[in-house]
Amino acid sequence: MWQELGINLEAHDNLLHVLEGFYENIYLSQKNRPEGMEYFDKVVSCIHGARIQELFKAKKENRLVLGTFCVFVPEEIVWAANGICVGLCAGAEIGFELAEEVLPRNICPLIKAFFGFKLSKVCPFVEICDFVVGETTCDGKKKAYEIFNEYKETYVMHVPQKKDKSSFDLWKNEVINFKSEIESRTGNKISQDDLLKAIELINKRREALKRLNSLRKADPPPISGLDVLLINQISFYDDPERFTAKVNELCDELEERIKRKEGVCPPGTPRIIVSGCPMAIPNWKLHYLVETSGAIIVGEESCVGTRNIRNLVEPKGSNVEDLLEDIASRYLKIDCAIFTPNAERIENIKSMIDEFSAHGLINYSLKFCDPYTTEVYKVNKTIDKVPTLNIETDYSQEDIEQLRTRIEAFLEILK
Amino acid sequence: MWQELGINLEAHDNLLHVLEGFYENIYLSQKNRPEGMEYFDKVVSCIHGARIQELFKAKKENRLVLGTFCVFVPEEIVWAANGICVGLCAGAEIGFELAEEVLPRNICPLIKAFFGFKLSKVCPFVEICDFVVGETTCDGKKKAYEIFNEYKETYVMHVPQKKDKSSFDLWKNEVINFKSEIESRTGNKISQDDLLKAIELINKRREALKRLNSLRKADPPPISGLDVLLINQISFYDDPERFTAKVNELCDELEERIKRKEGVCPPGTPRIIVSGCPMAIPNWKLHYLVETSGAIIVGEESCVGTRNIRNLVEPKGSNVEDLLEDIASRYLKIDCAIFTPNAERIENIKSMIDEFSAHGLINYSLKFCDPYTTEVYKVNKTIDKVPTLNIETDYSQEDIEQLRTRIEAFLEILK
Repeated sequence: MWQELGINLEAHDNLLHVLEGFYENIYLSQKNRPEGMEYFDKVVSCIHGARIQELFKAKKENRLVLGTFCVFVPEEIVWAANGICVGLCAGAEIGFELAEEVLPRNICPLIKAFFGFKLSKVCPFVEICDFVVGETTCDGKKKAYEIFNEYKETYVMHVPQKKDKSSFDLWKNEVINFKSEIESRTGNKISQDDLLKAIELINKRREALKRLNSLRKADPPPISGLDVLLINQISFYDDPERFTAKVNELCDELEERIKRKEGVCPPGTPRIIVSGCPMAIPNWKLHYLVETSGAIIVGEESCVGTRNIRNLVEPKGSNVEDLLEDIASRYLKIDCAIFTPNAERIENIKSMIDEFSAHGLINYSLKFCDPYTTEVYKVNKTIDKVPTLNIETDYSQEDIEQLRTRIEAFLEILK
Repeated sequence: MWQELGINLEAHDNLLHVLEGFYENIYLSQKNRPEGMEYFDKVVSCIHGARIQELFKAKKENRLVLGTFCVFVPEEIVWAANGICVGLCAGAEIGFELAEEVLPRNICPLIKAFFGFKLSKVCPFVEICDFVVGETTCDGKKKAYEIFNEYKETYVMHVPQKKDKSSFDLWKNEVINFKSEIESRTGNKISQDDLLKAIELINKRREALKRLNSLRKADPPPISGLDVLLINQISFYDDPERFTAKVNELCDELEERIKRKEGVCPPGTPRIIVSGCPMAIPNWKLHYLVETSGAIIVGEESCVGTRNIRNLVEPKGSNVEDLLEDIASRYLKIDCAIFTPNAERIENIKSMIDEFSAHGLINYSLKFCDPYTTEVYKVNKTIDKVPTLNIETDYSQEDIEQLRTRIEAFLEILK
């Protein structure tokens, strides 16, 4: 299978080996983890194994497999056509030297990583998928996709930059075009029933993740931020039905824990909301540092977090076109910093601070990410209820100690 | 007047003093300049004087003065309503410490500069204008305008990121809204005749600049790249009618020079096209380095260059709405790197290399500009007729000697 996919076996083995040690140190060393994490640990330990085999099998059965890098791709449409949507590797410093041969040096690490993984042939997801769906969210990705298309076919959706009527019309049209594209690639005509089922499938996944998040309101929280981050990361590539069931099982266990007032840290531990850029697997740096410095993360205001699950599709339409409009409408509610203005995001951060009784907010930005680094100013100006800390970093390990010092100093003022 | 505008007089005097010395070294030291440059020298020597007085007078007469940072603002609409459109200061390392208090450190120097000029109160243009019109071109500007609006009212036009039918519809709608905005701010209803006159006014300016550019095809060129760059820079804030007349006068003189085979350098001097990011006044660094290293610049594929003048508005419409569509259509032809794909730009660079018999191409990028720095890859991949050199820089003087060494090495291979 690996050979058929064109994976660079040696580099891939090395990567898995590093990942394993990394995972052991960061994840398995946590104390008092819920038993329900066992499934997710297994998913990670077979990250490039079991799921790839499933996808490989699905492809043999002529199912379309589509790869994405962003929460703006309306995956309901893919599932409705009996296709499969998977997130692609973008969370580690892999193949950066190769990536820098085609990309500018001063570009965000997530973009460098998705190129690096492709150019060094170690991401089986990008190799197995039929094509990639990009989006015109940020300048970096928008322009990088033009080049990426030379290595892997990339279809780009036009995401508008405002949310007014004309922007919605443009976006709705993009969603309709995307449906036609998926229909023509799969040969499956999407019916109203197909779409309703797919909407339900993905809504249920979002609801399970919302349920999981809401359990973190307890003091002490029954699960670590690290574990919830991991689950959110896995949501992008696992089978949605199985994943949803496993998250709900875990939530049942966490509810029992809450009843017993059992948590992963002592009551009164400083509670942190992290807000900003996505953390693609295995980017666990910030969570690791915060949670090994005496605090607990209770919320991720992030694409790999609440930004991806806050809004459900509300299927009001009674035909395919109207349902597509409901889908378009849901996706345009996403409070990404690429929009101008983007006041909803600030309101969402405020609500999270209240709902999760947070003591502090960490603005997390990937280096060179203009939308989020610029929005930090507005966030800090508006959030006056709790102290804030700005972290701008990449995927390297070089700044670990410096970050730890800053995080410890920040936690000190929360006490 | 300066006090009424709220200018920081001491800082402003210092700036003008530095600019004067700078101008003397870079511009006045050039040999065999055309006599027609005298007008433009005068404009620069009174850069914050005569034109500001004109604008000040216009404002007293209730004319609207509007400031912009980008060639996407359809200025015809402003002139049609008897308003005035001026480019704002963004080309020097002024007030960067203040700018970095609100903006991320890793943002392009042009953005840092427009904030810096505003925060340190040394750009009379931004102080005198009634409001600023921004645009959602790049992420950096789009997000920076949200903050800029706290210091100076900023109206933001939504520029799409593709050029298909829905993108055009969105953009046309933005142009129509902009017209309503200008009408309501000026109280002047724009008639078909007003619009036709304004289209002619700005087309004539573009035609004069096209004529000026085309004269650079001669060997030796009758005018330096530095001088043409300056004229392009001045086009953004001078009175269009007077400016056009002066450019045409200069062109008459240059035609005489060409007949006499008289130029600013010996025949056979290596001819360079510069391509990429805009160079706002007084950003003359690259031109200065190239033209004092034994080469001559014969074209700027840039917003401050051919990108701003290539296409005229073709007024086919017989009513205001249709004319607005003609205007929208012209602006959406601009081959800015913010579009995806942006194949026209590569074709335009190719044509320029042929038409101007260039020996080399310099890709000029402002540091941290994702759209242009990423497009460098495609440019270099496609342009095989002449050698290319990639320069990524900012407004500082620190890299001058390093750049000179690289430019000299590049010119060496052209010989």
